[in-house]
Amino acid sequence: MERVPGATVGVVGGGQLGRMLAEAASPLGVDVVALDPTPDCPAVPPATDQVVANFDDQGAVRDLAERADVLTYEIELADPDALDAVADEFDVEVHPTPETLRTIQDKLVQNRALADAGVPVPDFEAVDGADDLRAAFDSLGSPLMLKRRTGGYDGRGNAPAASVAEAREEFGDLDGFVAEELVDFERELSVIAARGDGETATFPVAENVHEAEVLRESVVPARTSEAVRERSTAVAEDVLGALDGRGVFGVELFEVDGAVLVNEIAPRPHNSGHYTIEGCHTSQFEQYARAVLGLPLGDTTLRDPAVMANVLGAPDAETRPAVLDGVPEILEDDRLAFHWYGKREVRPLRKLGHVTAVGDDRETLLARARNARDALSFQQGTETASERADHTTQS
Amino acid sequence: MERVPGATVGVVGGGQLGRMLAEAASPLGVDVVALDPTPDCPAVPPATDQVVANFDDQGAVRDLAERADVLTYEIELADPDALDAVADEFDVEVHPTPETLRTIQDKLVQNRALADAGVPVPDFEAVDGADDLRAAFDSLGSPLMLKRRTGGYDGRGNAPAASVAEAREEFGDLDGFVAEELVDFERELSVIAARGDGETATFPVAENVHEAEVLRESVVPARTSEAVRERSTAVAEDVLGALDGRGVFGVELFEVDGAVLVNEIAPRPHNSGHYTIEGCHTSQFEQYARAVLGLPLGDTTLRDPAVMANVLGAPDAETRPAVLDGVPEILEDDRLAFHWYGKREVRPLRKLGHVTAVGDDRETLLARARNARDALSFQQGTETASERADHTTQS
Repeated sequence: MERVPGATVGVVGGGQLGRMLAEAASPLGVDVVALDPTPDCPAVPPATDQVVANFDDQGAVRDLAERADVLTYEIELADPDALDAVADEFDVEVHPTPETLRTIQDKLVQNRALADAGVPVPDFEAVDGADDLRAAFDSLGSPLMLKRRTGGYDGRGNAPAASVAEAREEFGDLDGFVAEELVDFERELSVIAARGDGETATFPVAENVHEAEVLRESVVPARTSEAVRERSTAVAEDVLGALDGRGVFGVELFEVDGAVLVNEIAPRPHNSGHYTIEGCHTSQFEQYARAVLGLPLGDTTLRDPAVMANVLGAPDAETRPAVLDGVPEILEDDRLAFHWYGKREVRPLRKLGHVTAVGDDRETLLARARNARDALSFQQGTETASERADHTTQS
Repeated sequence: MERVPGATVGVVGGGQLGRMLAEAASPLGVDVVALDPTPDCPAVPPATDQVVANFDDQGAVRDLAERADVLTYEIELADPDALDAVADEFDVEVHPTPETLRTIQDKLVQNRALADAGVPVPDFEAVDGADDLRAAFDSLGSPLMLKRRTGGYDGRGNAPAASVAEAREEFGDLDGFVAEELVDFERELSVIAARGDGETATFPVAENVHEAEVLRESVVPARTSEAVRERSTAVAEDVLGALDGRGVFGVELFEVDGAVLVNEIAPRPHNSGHYTIEGCHTSQFEQYARAVLGLPLGDTTLRDPAVMANVLGAPDAETRPAVLDGVPEILEDDRLAFHWYGKREVRPLRKLGHVTAVGDDRETLLARARNARDALSFQQGTETASERADHTTQS
């Protein structure tokens, strides 16, 4: 157990998850230092400091370890080998373990680990080449879901395919994939699950609305049966049993005929858990800080039903400075929370912030959150920092 | 109305109030820059940056104004003249107005302003010298409460006196005081009240337990009659009417025979409003950010009864590094929130953090919060930074 107040968490990744971690860690007197390649990354401030370097920069990971009492990562692009090496060198723990990160980074290994632990997952096959894919169509049916084993997360690197030709067109190559049965789910659910020092805790089940593979809204409690919510929670607990190390995990689920299947695991706080900031007694970010530091976990009870809606760049957005209009107006809904991630540029479907509405009736909450989100817009015609730099050079 | 996200609040004072302001401002995408004489003041981080200077350093206040979209102050020691000057020079608004700060800084002027506005205050008299004090004993009774007109806050500079000799012993001189009738109150209450752009909002009434003039616990809702709570809220609204500018105000009240009298006003978030962070839909710190930026005010509804207990240096504490033991243990109460202020040194009765318990029954909450607070202790025998510097010099 680390000294609190006074401990420092070193986190690989300084995006919005690192930012909200730092916001939650500050009241505990916990400093956060983030390693991120983008100067002035979203996490800093409120995080104390940044090591500006690529995620796999071994020297930078060493710098982080020297300054931290515990290491963690808020992005799957963290380098488990670098983390393992500095953990030994500086006798600093990494949570969740680098081995867990390796398991998550490879979707085939992830599926196998979950299946071995008795966690229900869609039927799947390894695919390396056209022959494997043809065999997969035979065993899993067509179309199936093809996922790159590595490098993809948040739905990136995933696409359905009905033929070898279609898969080739989508991905180019066919090496290093996992094929999964295409699940005809009724809804998508998720559970944020935490493991602390000898204890676990799960947050209420969220119902998630995706579009183009990107999360748009989460509704909590999920609008499904109590039995499905209980089953989801039990499955999330089983997932924790299959992964090593303390931390917070996002467990994405498909609901199918009253049962649930695990779609994907994130070894970090998850977009579908942002509702916990206003919705629960403890947020997933405070829980993350508590978990990696070995502190007792906080109470995950839902205080009020909640709906979170993501503020995204438009699918066809041109890269430009992120200047957001409409926030003062949406705050006229006086029980609406707004969260900005401090990112400088709009990009297509980039996550730039979110809104959360809490109250009683989930349909009303969903309407309020969507109306608020839809009333926000990014200014057009503003130039990017690099464009301004060009002008400066020319003048 | 300032641009949010993207606005910067310049705040004179970088103590725990500035820190919790910055924690609440971060999700809104609002930067906070604090002016404070103590290097590495508690507010930074999470605040973006600090101007290290005395509160009345005109050049430093100008630096702050150049960087800020709006100026405010979280400490009564701010300099209204310096703020007025830069407001004109940089066309930046100051909230609450410097004039309000002047009113608050002088307890005689404060009492007169409140009395003129029809706000109930204890009977009071100006005291400049022994003759005035003797006259005050005649009109207000003995003992009375003697308060230095300027320089005191949080109970400092206040003391009861039963004779001229006793007052001389306590204060030395007798110039520049206000004498108030000593109120035999049943309990102390407070209301956090906010004024935004054309709207006001009040938080639920807190019941405050003081010891040696320092707040120890706040219990919310106050354990008094509904009529007294309503009256307290109405009086707080009247106080807003007597003061200029947007912001958050702490209105301290005495409850006497079913009525309330205003004891003191703080033109900033108040210790007795810390419970709002977990207790209400909007915290007093988010409200403060919203108010000074001219954003719509947030919902002040109580979500659950709450008790806050201050973590203080012992009355006889020697100045030493603030190394706090026991936090992991108290977090075993999984619905207890801990807030650390990031101060480096323990001093007698210094406010170093607080705990908040939320739930149903206020007696149970009070016991939980007190037990947690009392289980914390500052390490003995650790040397201060300046002592370490001495060793270094000697070796």
